[in-house]
Amino acid sequence: MTLAVGLIGAGMIGTEHATTIARRVSGAAVAGVFDVDTRRARAIAEATGAALFDFAGALVASDDIDAVVLATPGRYHAADVLACIDAGKPVMCEKPLAADVDDCVAVVEAEAKAGRRLVQVGFMRRFDPGYVEVKAAVSAGNIGQPLVLHNIHRNPAPPPSFSNEMMMTEAMIHEFDVSRWLLDDEVAAVRVLAPRPTPRAREGLLDPQVAILEMASGALADIEMFVTCTYGYDVRCEVVGSEGAVGLESSGATTLRLGGSRAQPIATGWKERFGEAYRLELQAWVDGALSGTATGPTAWDGYAATVIAARAVDAQRSGERTTVDLVDRPALYRPRT
Amino acid sequence: MTLAVGLIGAGMIGTEHATTIARRVSGAAVAGVFDVDTRRARAIAEATGAALFDFAGALVASDDIDAVVLATPGRYHAADVLACIDAGKPVMCEKPLAADVDDCVAVVEAEAKAGRRLVQVGFMRRFDPGYVEVKAAVSAGNIGQPLVLHNIHRNPAPPPSFSNEMMMTEAMIHEFDVSRWLLDDEVAAVRVLAPRPTPRAREGLLDPQVAILEMASGALADIEMFVTCTYGYDVRCEVVGSEGAVGLESSGATTLRLGGSRAQPIATGWKERFGEAYRLELQAWVDGALSGTATGPTAWDGYAATVIAARAVDAQRSGERTTVDLVDRPALYRPRT
Amino acid sequence: MTLAVGLIGAGMIGTEHATTIARRVSGAAVAGVFDVDTRRARAIAEATGAALFDFAGALVASDDIDAVVLATPGRYHAADVLACIDAGKPVMCEKPLAADVDDCVAVVEAEAKAGRRLVQVGFMRRFDPGYVEVKAAVSAGNIGQPLVLHNIHRNPAPPPSFSNEMMMTEAMIHEFDVSRWLLDDEVAAVRVLAPRPTPRAREGLLDPQVAILEMASGALADIEMFVTCTYGYDVRCEVVGSEGAVGLESSGATTLRLGGSRAQPIATGWKERFGEAYRLELQAWVDGALSGTATGPTAWDGYAATVIAARAVDAQRSGERTTVDLVDRPALYRPRT
Amino acid sequence: MTLAVGLIGAGMIGTEHATTIARRVSGAAVAGVFDVDTRRARAIAEATGAALFDFAGALVASDDIDAVVLATPGRYHAADVLACIDAGKPVMCEKPLAADVDDCVAVVEAEAKAGRRLVQVGFMRRFDPGYVEVKAAVSAGNIGQPLVLHNIHRNPAPPPSFSNEMMMTEAMIHEFDVSRWLLDDEVAAVRVLAPRPTPRAREGLLDPQVAILEMASGALADIEMFVTCTYGYDVRCEVVGSEGAVGLESSGATTLRLGGSRAQPIATGWKERFGEAYRLELQAWVDGALSGTATGPTAWDGYAATVIAARAVDAQRSGERTTVDLVDRPALYRPRT
Repeated sequence: MTLAVGLIGAGMIGTEHATTIARRVSGAAVAGVFDVDTRRARAIAEATGAALFDFAGALVASDDIDAVVLATPGRYHAADVLACIDAGKPVMCEKPLAADVDDCVAVVEAEAKAGRRLVQVGFMRRFDPGYVEVKAAVSAGNIGQPLVLHNIHRNPAPPPSFSNEMMMTEAMIHEFDVSRWLLDDEVAAVRVLAPRPTPRAREGLLDPQVAILEMASGALADIEMFVTCTYGYDVRCEVVGSEGAVGLESSGATTLRLGGSRAQPIATGWKERFGEAYRLELQAWVDGALSGTATGPTAWDGYAATVIAARAVDAQRSGERTTVDLVDRPALYRPRT
Repeated sequence: MTLAVGLIGAGMIGTEHATTIARRVSGAAVAGVFDVDTRRARAIAEATGAALFDFAGALVASDDIDAVVLATPGRYHAADVLACIDAGKPVMCEKPLAADVDDCVAVVEAEAKAGRRLVQVGFMRRFDPGYVEVKAAVSAGNIGQPLVLHNIHRNPAPPPSFSNEMMMTEAMIHEFDVSRWLLDDEVAAVRVLAPRPTPRAREGLLDPQVAILEMASGALADIEMFVTCTYGYDVRCEVVGSEGAVGLESSGATTLRLGGSRAQPIATGWKERFGEAYRLELQAWVDGALSGTATGPTAWDGYAATVIAARAVDAQRSGERTTVDLVDRPALYRPRT
Repeated sequence: MTLAVGLIGAGMIGTEHATTIARRVSGAAVAGVFDVDTRRARAIAEATGAALFDFAGALVASDDIDAVVLATPGRYHAADVLACIDAGKPVMCEKPLAADVDDCVAVVEAEAKAGRRLVQVGFMRRFDPGYVEVKAAVSAGNIGQPLVLHNIHRNPAPPPSFSNEMMMTEAMIHEFDVSRWLLDDEVAAVRVLAPRPTPRAREGLLDPQVAILEMASGALADIEMFVTCTYGYDVRCEVVGSEGAVGLESSGATTLRLGGSRAQPIATGWKERFGEAYRLELQAWVDGALSGTATGPTAWDGYAATVIAARAVDAQRSGERTTVDLVDRPALYRPRT
Repeated sequence: MTLAVGLIGAGMIGTEHATTIARRVSGAAVAGVFDVDTRRARAIAEATGAALFDFAGALVASDDIDAVVLATPGRYHAADVLACIDAGKPVMCEKPLAADVDDCVAVVEAEAKAGRRLVQVGFMRRFDPGYVEVKAAVSAGNIGQPLVLHNIHRNPAPPPSFSNEMMMTEAMIHEFDVSRWLLDDEVAAVRVLAPRPTPRAREGLLDPQVAILEMASGALADIEMFVTCTYGYDVRCEVVGSEGAVGLESSGATTLRLGGSRAQPIATGWKERFGEAYRLELQAWVDGALSGTATGPTAWDGYAATVIAARAVDAQRSGERTTVDLVDRPALYRPRT
């Protein structure tokens, strides 16, 4: 059986997902597409044979669509995710689950009420083979009790309109999720510090920034976010435990010896660094959807990340330690005992 | 459109290919299966919904089969590959193309006569992302003119009946192909040397062995083959050129710090080391077959590797430098000018 | 000419320095020794042929002593350093310059009044070949303007009586100096955070701890200090600049492939990690002393590190951001323009 | 006590040794110097305070000289080494012990007759910390029984008059010694193969070349020697054993992230790569000489390396496997049982 996937949002990431589903994932086809920009939607329809829809709602409701990939901007997510839940259709929602905390709560409540997982949030790092190795080492107890987590997240250059708020809501949000996941923990408080900005930063952008997360368990996570690092797309982490440490390097497999050095390539863009993670994320989602459920990051994970990002924006503005409070976690999202 | 794939040979590698096609490759389904051991064939049929065939020939001839994966032992390959060519159906033939040089010649001639590529030989390393990076660096001229190639190929332990001949025909054959491919060259002569065997080697097995290839261009390639190395599945190479060198390490992405060392994992088996290469190989084959052609390693590549392996067995026995002679290369396999 | 070195303090580090001077440094001999524990002093005298002194003051004043190595506990340093300045004799003073800030000021003022450098403080990392490479890359402008510095300082296990205060004054003090030196900057403020302690920590010891330094330039430095990390003596750093980053790994030169991993040794003790830095530090000091001056870390550097450590202890107790204020820097310690 | 060292030969390496002894070694001073080029000798005399000698023999015989460093071209070594043995003075003889096999035999016989070690041959790699780590891992049995040794020896560019013969006698001779030492074995036969030369090689120079050593134990060692590799001074090796492998990389401690790669420096010259090994070699020699003996590589090691180099030159010319035969090893050079 082939999963008929409908795509809502045909921008850069939506187009990439459509291509991946059409050409590199087993068990699925792009069956429908909607975007307010009909030109972009038509390009995908032509490339994949997908039907064009006039409204997101029509796509979600269509009998020809089994499951939905949602790749619109975050502020438009909630309505479509709720519609998917209402229709009982699995949905892969790009991060963030929603830009607004209340919207996230509404999704969590709706899914909890539905009583089964339909939502997977697009935190693709959880499918990156390197991160999976780190998680496995931590979960296996190889390093004992986790105490400190260091994260480094560097990009060569930001999009033109990148703001201080987006440093938290668009970029560090990946580390907010990764920190919760690797440490199997919630965030209790957040601080944000900013050194002098790089001379290359756009006027007003504080770049780099450093966030410090106090976890509910007492562990500490720090995050260096630097979107104008120039040299590459460099994502690393290290979990330090009571018995050892496990680290992730964004290393290539080859070493080039030239002119007095031996060099390993660093990815220069997100596709190069996380293309494989996106493919594995979508394959896992398709496999889950074909059996009527969802896997990977939950709506709860999406909610928690949005709350942390909102509090981090507060902390960035105030310069103060800011607590992070979550609503009660519905039973659907609790680990089975 | 979905490519209906028929599998001939349901052993370890055939079963792995069937699983990969069914679950991790886009655009294909396992539609038929044949194995002399009907129990193994039935297991695949049940897992994938494939039809069972009573003869390889019936599978190749069936209108329900678009393309064939051939995963029987090498000595049975030729007849089925020839049948596929005759039927105009793309075939992914596991290495070796054929155990016998004359059989390889017959395939090359048949395909050349057919006038279009239908055969892809299963040298999966050409799809391994690390090897692809090395090839790209060499082809881009980053290291100047290639002069020496070092290959290391270590496995933890061999199958029970592994022989000195199989050191060449089953194991080093990967490096025979890799050396031709990375250097874009043919092998002109081969020497084989054997140090004292590891105390762990089965009685009579010379392990490790070292082969030295003289390439037609004058470049030199050496190969260390060690099938009882115990510690891991470790495959590396380095191409040394007039301006620099590029090397491949079988490295993991994570580093574990414990007990006085920092350690990166080494794969312990072929699935772990080359699972991704097999997936990419099959995806490329399916993509090619859907457009009616073949990509990747050709029948000519398969023929050349079998000739080198045969001459390497001679060299192993005689201890002498042994020349490698090939028939004329048909136009189908010549680079377009 | 041979520099006649007098050693004050024959504990672990004093004995190590005596051995290094006697056997691995050019141009010097251990000519005198004093320790309140006469047994320890006698051991060194016997091993090196040094004369025994009854008082530190007698050693400093002796015509048979050209220069002094001071390796007593930090709270006893000031008087002897002042005596050396008074006697016009070069002195290599182990870190800290003094435990008390006022004592440090007194030394700085005395040396400034003397008008020439006589004091070298034992921040040996400035002589470690790896740190020297990092410093050279930063100074050469390879990474542009430095913005963030990450430091990691892990030891397998602390001495029995190690306290929270000593986390700052004995351990992190190295990073306080390294941060000033690598960034060519002063510290303006410090924060100290403590995650839950490792279960292996002695009752009451907060271990690990994280300090964050705001530099006068606006750059940010963070320090992870973990004295019970168990797995090794692991010291690393990374300077992140506007054009790139340069990092230091405590890596060995060899790789051991065994049992599914490839491992590089990590030092397990300070001698193994910094033995060569200590030798180079002492050679540089002897070379300087033979020409009547001092090199390397200055009394000012020692003063600044003690102030930062004192403020870090305050910050540790209060949990607050704590400013670091220094007295005016005497001309002797200003870079020549 | 200070060892009064006399230097014979004030060329590049002799001058380097004089500087090292004068400034970086404990327990020795340069007390005398002789060179046929009096200008070069005078430069050293002025820098170190050494006395000038008119003849090598006068220096060796002088009561003011305790021990000799011999850094003339290899063809002049034998007479001076024999004079040192005759005078009972320790001598550090640069490699080769002698260019001529018979001369080496004469030295070995003279020292054996003297009945105690006076000669240390300048194979400095045995003092390189990385090689020492490899040797320690092999000797400790960590990798089981050694079976194969791979050596890589690359230099950026050769001296102007570098010849095919010198590829063996000046360059690979280091690997001939290293192979004997790491494997604790003798060489039984040698083959030399040459790929097409790099376009950068001087007319007539075969560069790179590959040698293959059959060891007496049955182990195999291969050596890639490439003196025009352009990119750096890159020396590596890997010992492959029955239970694992241990390798040496010429890696720096720092990693520079710039422009899409992370790069570790490779040394560009011998001083940078082996300067520390030379210092440790001379310190060990001084320590030995002060107690009236010699340590490190013996005259026997020097003899064996010269024989292997001579046979390698034969093998290079003939293209054939060439056996290596040694005279009986005097008791002085046998391991104590």
